[in-house]
Amino acid sequence: MNNPQLNKEGKLTHLLSIEGLSASILREILDTAESFVGVAEREVKKVPLLRGKTVCNLFFENSTRTRTTFEIAAKRLSADVITLNVGTSSQSKGETILDTVDNLIAMHADMFVVRHSQSGAAHFIARHVQENIHVINAGDGRHAHPTQGLLDVFTIRHYKPEMHNLRVAVVGDLLHSRVARSEIHALTTLGVPEVRVIAPKTLLPEHVEKLGVRVFHDMAEGLKDVDVVMMLRLQNERMNGALLPSAQEYFKCYGLTQEKLALARPDAIVMHPGPMNRGVEIDSAVADGNQSVILPQVTYGIAIRMAVMSILAGN
Amino acid sequence: MNNPQLNKEGKLTHLLSIEGLSASILREILDTAESFVGVAEREVKKVPLLRGKTVCNLFFENSTRTRTTFEIAAKRLSADVITLNVGTSSQSKGETILDTVDNLIAMHADMFVVRHSQSGAAHFIARHVQENIHVINAGDGRHAHPTQGLLDVFTIRHYKPEMHNLRVAVVGDLLHSRVARSEIHALTTLGVPEVRVIAPKTLLPEHVEKLGVRVFHDMAEGLKDVDVVMMLRLQNERMNGALLPSAQEYFKCYGLTQEKLALARPDAIVMHPGPMNRGVEIDSAVADGNQSVILPQVTYGIAIRMAVMSILAGN
Amino acid sequence: MNNPQLNKEGKLTHLLSIEGLSASILREILDTAESFVGVAEREVKKVPLLRGKTVCNLFFENSTRTRTTFEIAAKRLSADVITLNVGTSSQSKGETILDTVDNLIAMHADMFVVRHSQSGAAHFIARHVQENIHVINAGDGRHAHPTQGLLDVFTIRHYKPEMHNLRVAVVGDLLHSRVARSEIHALTTLGVPEVRVIAPKTLLPEHVEKLGVRVFHDMAEGLKDVDVVMMLRLQNERMNGALLPSAQEYFKCYGLTQEKLALARPDAIVMHPGPMNRGVEIDSAVADGNQSVILPQVTYGIAIRMAVMSILAGN
Repeated sequence: MNNPQLNKEGKLTHLLSIEGLSASILREILDTAESFVGVAEREVKKVPLLRGKTVCNLFFENSTRTRTTFEIAAKRLSADVITLNVGTSSQSKGETILDTVDNLIAMHADMFVVRHSQSGAAHFIARHVQENIHVINAGDGRHAHPTQGLLDVFTIRHYKPEMHNLRVAVVGDLLHSRVARSEIHALTTLGVPEVRVIAPKTLLPEHVEKLGVRVFHDMAEGLKDVDVVMMLRLQNERMNGALLPSAQEYFKCYGLTQEKLALARPDAIVMHPGPMNRGVEIDSAVADGNQSVILPQVTYGIAIRMAVMSILAGN
Repeated sequence: MNNPQLNKEGKLTHLLSIEGLSASILREILDTAESFVGVAEREVKKVPLLRGKTVCNLFFENSTRTRTTFEIAAKRLSADVITLNVGTSSQSKGETILDTVDNLIAMHADMFVVRHSQSGAAHFIARHVQENIHVINAGDGRHAHPTQGLLDVFTIRHYKPEMHNLRVAVVGDLLHSRVARSEIHALTTLGVPEVRVIAPKTLLPEHVEKLGVRVFHDMAEGLKDVDVVMMLRLQNERMNGALLPSAQEYFKCYGLTQEKLALARPDAIVMHPGPMNRGVEIDSAVADGNQSVILPQVTYGIAIRMAVMSILAGN
Repeated sequence: MNNPQLNKEGKLTHLLSIEGLSASILREILDTAESFVGVAEREVKKVPLLRGKTVCNLFFENSTRTRTTFEIAAKRLSADVITLNVGTSSQSKGETILDTVDNLIAMHADMFVVRHSQSGAAHFIARHVQENIHVINAGDGRHAHPTQGLLDVFTIRHYKPEMHNLRVAVVGDLLHSRVARSEIHALTTLGVPEVRVIAPKTLLPEHVEKLGVRVFHDMAEGLKDVDVVMMLRLQNERMNGALLPSAQEYFKCYGLTQEKLALARPDAIVMHPGPMNRGVEIDSAVADGNQSVILPQVTYGIAIRMAVMSILAGN
């Protein structure tokens, strides 16, 4: 089967999910992002790579945070950015998604950043568009959110460049995470020898061990000697169901405290995709502590998005 | 009576409605738009004609689609664009429309793109502003939406340059269409000898024949040998009233199918202002077929808006 | 106690309130604004002073009017502007204000324009951020709205440069005004010898006379021989409470009419922060009359905001 993310020359033309990206394409994105980290530190944080291009933020569900990161990335590349909150737009007049997309292409949009509550929406649009139009998945249902996955991998490689020597623990709600699965895949592809998942059974997908991870239900065991602790966000709405007893209970068992973190390697880094529930999945002392790289993740997220946009536009 | 769209030198200073525009001004707009079609096909889709100018999108009713087209056009001309959804703004604090406008002028806004649910709102603002401020009507009530009319005329001239030889059919809900009346006027002004309207009696304005059109109630008769078929959007809300029996019934009588289109000339083009109700006023096979110029209409819409903005700013 | 608005060199690094600004810093802002008045009158209303900088409009409460003025000012300085209506954003996902701010700083935001319904929100953010990040208070509760105060002072100095000779009357709802108190302070600091307040007792804060003003409850007495009449907006919601009898009654006693204005000096100027309630606190004949400088206030508001942004970015 064709990989819908690659063009005929095998180059990246859409970014839909991390699955299906070879180690060499992953490294190309990470290396390109490295060069954009410096741009944000300049006096004039702008490069003309996408000047005169039109980037469409096509948001079928609201996400100020994600929209902002892509808008900043596109503007630093000098693109014109058009944001459409499609929930409140022509969709309500009965127009199909593809008609909306075709209209924007007719206006010479060059790139679509797509956010949708349903899995596969970005794939659906990518399959439809012409060769010179590029689609970036900015989150679809529980399925994929590849720029988040890439920025996490970038952050790990940045602080721990010897990836073939790492022990990474992913902690928390893997069942509902948009990104955990992709990241595990990316880490494995880039040679990380040991990925652990730590969670109660109710927050693990079935057959999670098939992803090539070691499964732990106990933080004390799972965190022992790891180099990287990736916390996942616990969605509050899960609390109401039968999945979890209470936020307090969860924090006691799976919340990351200084005490639990002490079980990891002394130079271990702590990550979180944000927004954080302080006192639920992570203690403030850890979130703001000197092992935390949570804010650098945000910084590298802009560099990753600039890298993806400039690679797609160039291919 | 003075034409409120022209300045003392007889040049276009506002675009309020197609009525009142001479053939020579219409041709100036269409010819200028022709030169902007190329801009959108360049690598860098930007010209500096409105650099340092402030264009205000003043939307008293929401229309993502229209807002987007003007925003793209203004940005490609290098203007700064400020969007105000005035429904949710100072209006609710009791400020009058003219106070809102005066405030924006005091901030040195150069141009207003006005969308309002009431007929005459753009005229009202245009009458009020100083000489160097320009107003574009982006749709007011059922009255006028002149850039839509102009892009339709541009599209017809583009595909059928011999306008004095054409037969054009306008099909559907003329009663509620913002644009049909203006277009009929523009086509007549530009020398089109025969314009037909095809619709059930309940969707025709009174005395429609005074516009100089031939009236048909039957598609088979009306479409015979026409060069251009302009479908109008059927607003779903009309279905609930007594005006129409049902969407299925409407499609059967007035929906454009391949079969009905075959009655027109073999090289006839099919137009629709969007958003389309596929399966109501138009069949997907026609909408996506090789006689459809529905997406080129959208493309030319950007060129028309760039042309109008640059002509107004230059006069 | 440290002044949170100044950096170690004593230069302005945040604009939080007019209180605490020395006469020399006030004059620096006003003089810088003077130089930006000309920019808005050029063909190309743009200077590259903030090119490549990212200005974040962080609006915890909606205010289209204020948001627009800052957006226009930032764009004329060539900044990239990101607007976040935080009420509808991550806040609702349980993230703290400071986490939201830290995230934007991690994305290399350079400046925050903060609007919040609670007093002290901008101060709170300013205390938190690093040295090279600047915060502008765009209105917090009833407390402060310093750019409004500054533009008023700018306007007075512009029309009445001999400030040590002036009589200024502030009329209306001082109890709920964000700006009246700051302006009185600024005028006094800049040497205005006599500031009067005119209002019913129910709309005056306690101990108002401690601000160094003369208190009047009668327009005829208070307006006598003043050079400047600063009307305040009457918030409609106050009408419903016990504070005021009715809009008609208020207009009769405290609404500014031509008749009452005649008691002031013949060359007195009339100011209002907008949006106006015509027929409540001000009569249309006065608002649109030749002593009104209400629209120039708006114009100078852009210059003041450009001045503040460029001074902060330069320090």
